[in-house]
Amino acid sequence: MSNALHWLIPVAGLAAVLFALYLARDVLSRDKGPQAMQDVADTIREGADAFVKRQYTTIALLALAAAVIIGVVIALVESPDVADVRDLAGAPIGALTAFAFLVGAGCSMASGIIGMTISVRSNVRTAAAARRSLVEAVQVAMRGGAVSGFLVVALSLLGVWGIFTLYDTLFDKVTVATAPFVIVGFGFGASFVALFAQLGGGIYTKAADVGSDLVGKVEAGIPEDDPRNAGVIADLVGDNVGDCAGRGADLFESTAAENIGAMILGVSIYTIASLAGWPNPEAWIFFPLVVRAFGLLATIVAVAFFIRGREDEDPMNILNRGYWVTTILSVVGLAVTTFVMMDTPGTTGASGIPVWVWFFLCGIVGLVTSVVFVYITQYYTAGSFRPVREIAEASKTGPATNIISGTAVGFETTFVTALSIGAALLASHWLGSQAGLKNAAGNDVGGIFGTAVATMGMLMTTAYILAMDTFGPITDNAGGVAEFSRAEAGAREITDRLDAVGNTTKALTKGYAIASASLAAFLLFSAYIDKVNLILGNRGEAPLTSVNLADVGVFVAAFIGAMLAYFFSSLAIRAVGKTAQSIIVEVRRQFREIPGIMDYTARPDYARVVDITTRAALREMVAPGLVAVAAPIIVGLLLGYQAVAGFLMVGTISGVLLATVLNNGGGAWDNAKKYIESGNLKDDQGNVLGKKTDAHAAAVVGDTVGDPYKDTAGPSLHVLVKLIATITLVLAPLFIR
Amino acid sequence: MSNALHWLIPVAGLAAVLFALYLARDVLSRDKGPQAMQDVADTIREGADAFVKRQYTTIALLALAAAVIIGVVIALVESPDVADVRDLAGAPIGALTAFAFLVGAGCSMASGIIGMTISVRSNVRTAAAARRSLVEAVQVAMRGGAVSGFLVVALSLLGVWGIFTLYDTLFDKVTVATAPFVIVGFGFGASFVALFAQLGGGIYTKAADVGSDLVGKVEAGIPEDDPRNAGVIADLVGDNVGDCAGRGADLFESTAAENIGAMILGVSIYTIASLAGWPNPEAWIFFPLVVRAFGLLATIVAVAFFIRGREDEDPMNILNRGYWVTTILSVVGLAVTTFVMMDTPGTTGASGIPVWVWFFLCGIVGLVTSVVFVYITQYYTAGSFRPVREIAEASKTGPATNIISGTAVGFETTFVTALSIGAALLASHWLGSQAGLKNAAGNDVGGIFGTAVATMGMLMTTAYILAMDTFGPITDNAGGVAEFSRAEAGAREITDRLDAVGNTTKALTKGYAIASASLAAFLLFSAYIDKVNLILGNRGEAPLTSVNLADVGVFVAAFIGAMLAYFFSSLAIRAVGKTAQSIIVEVRRQFREIPGIMDYTARPDYARVVDITTRAALREMVAPGLVAVAAPIIVGLLLGYQAVAGFLMVGTISGVLLATVLNNGGGAWDNAKKYIESGNLKDDQGNVLGKKTDAHAAAVVGDTVGDPYKDTAGPSLHVLVKLIATITLVLAPLFIR
Repeated sequence: MSNALHWLIPVAGLAAVLFALYLARDVLSRDKGPQAMQDVADTIREGADAFVKRQYTTIALLALAAAVIIGVVIALVESPDVADVRDLAGAPIGALTAFAFLVGAGCSMASGIIGMTISVRSNVRTAAAARRSLVEAVQVAMRGGAVSGFLVVALSLLGVWGIFTLYDTLFDKVTVATAPFVIVGFGFGASFVALFAQLGGGIYTKAADVGSDLVGKVEAGIPEDDPRNAGVIADLVGDNVGDCAGRGADLFESTAAENIGAMILGVSIYTIASLAGWPNPEAWIFFPLVVRAFGLLATIVAVAFFIRGREDEDPMNILNRGYWVTTILSVVGLAVTTFVMMDTPGTTGASGIPVWVWFFLCGIVGLVTSVVFVYITQYYTAGSFRPVREIAEASKTGPATNIISGTAVGFETTFVTALSIGAALLASHWLGSQAGLKNAAGNDVGGIFGTAVATMGMLMTTAYILAMDTFGPITDNAGGVAEFSRAEAGAREITDRLDAVGNTTKALTKGYAIASASLAAFLLFSAYIDKVNLILGNRGEAPLTSVNLADVGVFVAAFIGAMLAYFFSSLAIRAVGKTAQSIIVEVRRQFREIPGIMDYTARPDYARVVDITTRAALREMVAPGLVAVAAPIIVGLLLGYQAVAGFLMVGTISGVLLATVLNNGGGAWDNAKKYIESGNLKDDQGNVLGKKTDAHAAAVVGDTVGDPYKDTAGPSLHVLVKLIATITLVLAPLFIR
Repeated sequence: MSNALHWLIPVAGLAAVLFALYLARDVLSRDKGPQAMQDVADTIREGADAFVKRQYTTIALLALAAAVIIGVVIALVESPDVADVRDLAGAPIGALTAFAFLVGAGCSMASGIIGMTISVRSNVRTAAAARRSLVEAVQVAMRGGAVSGFLVVALSLLGVWGIFTLYDTLFDKVTVATAPFVIVGFGFGASFVALFAQLGGGIYTKAADVGSDLVGKVEAGIPEDDPRNAGVIADLVGDNVGDCAGRGADLFESTAAENIGAMILGVSIYTIASLAGWPNPEAWIFFPLVVRAFGLLATIVAVAFFIRGREDEDPMNILNRGYWVTTILSVVGLAVTTFVMMDTPGTTGASGIPVWVWFFLCGIVGLVTSVVFVYITQYYTAGSFRPVREIAEASKTGPATNIISGTAVGFETTFVTALSIGAALLASHWLGSQAGLKNAAGNDVGGIFGTAVATMGMLMTTAYILAMDTFGPITDNAGGVAEFSRAEAGAREITDRLDAVGNTTKALTKGYAIASASLAAFLLFSAYIDKVNLILGNRGEAPLTSVNLADVGVFVAAFIGAMLAYFFSSLAIRAVGKTAQSIIVEVRRQFREIPGIMDYTARPDYARVVDITTRAALREMVAPGLVAVAAPIIVGLLLGYQAVAGFLMVGTISGVLLATVLNNGGGAWDNAKKYIESGNLKDDQGNVLGKKTDAHAAAVVGDTVGDPYKDTAGPSLHVLVKLIATITLVLAPLFIR
């Protein structure tokens, strides 16, 4: 057991930030293409900047208000005489929590804003590169995406480490063993921002997509991304604010909250190690951060040296190569970290095998789970397998059977999801418990820490996954820019290929986000119980040894938690509908009142649509956001700390399953449409049923239905499940009376 | 406390059977109308008889196999020396359980078959009565429906009471306090039959509906129920086998399983009462059956004397009047039962209020909950309120927005559902705990019994609700018969009005079934824990005091339980799609190969479609059925008895919520279409958007999508949640190692 690797945390974090800056400079220095391309890109950029500015202003105000409330409430509950976390008496816990909240919120906003700033500048450069070379276009898009990826993970790592070190240094009462409980506010701040960023962005992007498609493609009969459609710029802006800023905030939150949760669990082992007199017991607390640092380094190597290939290669291969490099280097990093930080000569787990080996295997379980999810998602959403083909076949008998078939596929995807998550949890828990770490009461704490290590293992590749994800909106936009500026056919062909790859990477990221949220659920939940028991212990009360579903209060709270996922999704989906309605009305008005749009003699007023969408999306994000924040607080206040734990766990299960249904169902519908467009569907006589057939029209209906499922409600549910976990963690003292 | 009311159980049961026979004779003696009507009705009847005969043969074979397996497995686990239920050592528990299973399965099948036999004979008589008078038509349909209602509830009551008395009399070892544990097999048998009856019937009815609509209305352009469509008879047969036989089996199962569960909980109080030396402690065990007997008597009065009204009255009013009479008489019956059976002079609960008053109030909570659900369902599925209007408005922009809007509505309905169930559980638990009944260990047992009494209160009106439900398919069929036989316009107008009312009553019944399943979940779950603890106690092990969600095995089992609802629904929905496909192929073939169908010179081969649908539906019901049966057994064997409890509870929560979404979403889509057809939707210029507009076409897509949701997957989920409860109850000894 050694602290020898602690220095890696700031070093890897800073290295990632510097590398992101280098990538940003590299991308920005590239050719922006002809003036026509630059004009479109400028319009998109202005729209995105305007939305993000207004959105983040709103979020900042909400976060400020929330910070004040949190600070005051916690200060009131935690009177200095009866501080609830052992040894923290006398420290200004309310203020510390509120400050950590603000830092978490600030870091999340910063990484979102900077990432998106680069992303809206990468699109045109990708389009320009596509005029010359496929590989160059892949590089530009991937490097632009990697800026987001690195900043998100590095800021989360540096933020957690920084505030931990700051509090530990400045306040006597805050020690290595108590700090994780105070910095939980950081995770709450991150989830708070993530919720509104994902909701606002998700509503914007899909309302713009659905709204402009309905009025353009369906009513006016003009193609997608046609410059005559006043909603088309809003649609392109939406890709950036939803897929890029939204998912970035989502994964910022994952890495932050899961780091802190794992550190809280590490405190239990720190206590065991201290009592046993092992050297450097705090290594157990820093372990999650060091693992994350190795993940960053692995990703830097992959992005710097392995995003290259032949012009005739499938671009997905190029990205996959980088992913495998990241994964393999992560395995090495995991081995080094567990060996250096967990090896205690003379202490072994079951069968005489060293402690670190057991935890190394837990980490491998996490990495394997992430690979499994990549394949599950591909199976259910790619055109080469049964599910998508089934939906395409069902489109022959019209939109109703298309929808029924897609629903069945979405529901079906929960099966392998639940079994994989279950297997990963059971395996990592069993492996962890073999390490033989027992606390003073004789209870095994290694099992739960094993699940935390699995989560850490899975999250090592986050920066790379996020880079691939942001690759999606960049190439999507590049395609839009090329179409809009009427670029050469060769460039269009390349951007189309990249766009298809981007759709796949976006789907994979969602699968990854779901899997990590599920593994993290158990971790955060265990951290909550640890915190509750510290508080109960300090108050001289019996610990919470069980969250008893047979208790009527817990059961009712679990019921309400399970319902929350549906209700929240209902609000999010309805918000898309309402916002889309405003867009439809405005685009229709422009077609009617601005003569000459249809024959290209007049330019539609794109900015007005962008502005209307911005205002509507921001207005509509408030209700679902507040419901998500208020629900755990109300349940906790009314039904108590044990019931809120039931709310949290069953709410997470329900949220994860519903998100799986919405993401995969939506992805499968999307690709069923593409399957038909690519001429894969045939009638009984063997004739191809392609575009402009009834089957294609039916598939378009499914695709449109899937839009708010997979890009608004589904991803927002990822954030929801983590938000309810961080809220309950921070506000635990409130629920104990 | 007194046994003075026990005699009511067989008397009310027999009275209900006799009354059902009287009603059946009355209905059968009525005018069958002109020959044309009789011909259609005969064809429907033959098709229904053929399906039911084959379906029940299949189910009977499956049940027989299951009974043998259960008997052998339990005999092996429960060796005579170490019988797991106290004092049962020496009794042939395996054989007793298997026999009870067969009796439960047999009673369920009998009530389904007899009820449907009357229902398929009531349709033509209702159509004939509609040629003369609205009130007479309502009476015929309601009396036909009441035959099912009374038989289902009476056979369940007599079955449970009969087998209880039989075992108690024949076997020394079986006493009043042990019998409830042995007769659990009855409930399992009932759920086993219910699952396959509902699945097979649900798949049949919706496959026939969707299949014949798609090929007739959409492809051939002929109206619904048109005699030229070869699938139309299968569609009419489907109403009977799905809505009538299926829902009957569902509620047979509810009343049986919930009676037995409540009796098991009553054993705890029986023990307290015995120790305290109160007279007739067994009254606590018989209480659920006596309450049910009063419910039957209340329903007899309502059906016999209150189904009457004026010719110009809204038929829904007539039915509502009967419902209120049943409810009010039930309140009286509840007061009598609690006062006579629970009053123990000298013993009072909190605030000096007698024990019986507290439990009376619990029963009132149940009755109120059922009324609340009736109104919730109406709000979400009737055209006069916001949700349905919103879906209709969304249809203006096409099928995609119709689907998105309907999904949002379906999701939203979980909110009030969860809050109402939660409130009912908390209220009845609190009221019950005020009775102050503590067991030897000092734990309150009144709270859980309070939730059981609430369930009993809610289920008092089951026979009436079921009569209203069966009213649905009878009037639906009457409409089809009238259309098919080209009856007078006046008769058509009356059957149309009754059909609309029938749609409402069918929706209400589903809301009622959901609410009772949710309340019962907690009851059955508590019964499971009681049984597990008896077994553990007998084996000299520590009792299960908690189902700890923080245990990784319990959490994983809960995750899998929550997933089961989705996976099962996916299989059920896909089964409808596959069966519908066979129908489409066959009807298309007939249009092609039998010339003269379209100009009425040739008759399509209806019987062949009926036969194909029958075979396909029976084949497709097997996979989801086996998944439902196997899942709890596998989880229990792999993860143990505590984990399976988590599986059960969270599986129930998830199943109830998903069923709510599917039932209400489907109902709302259906009525949005009707809202448009009735000319309520207008465009911006105030023109009516009715039939044959794009908005109507969009609404038809929503209606079709909703069909398998609300009539196959949703209702099958009701059965699923009760099935997993009865399986775990019966097989509990298997999971304890």
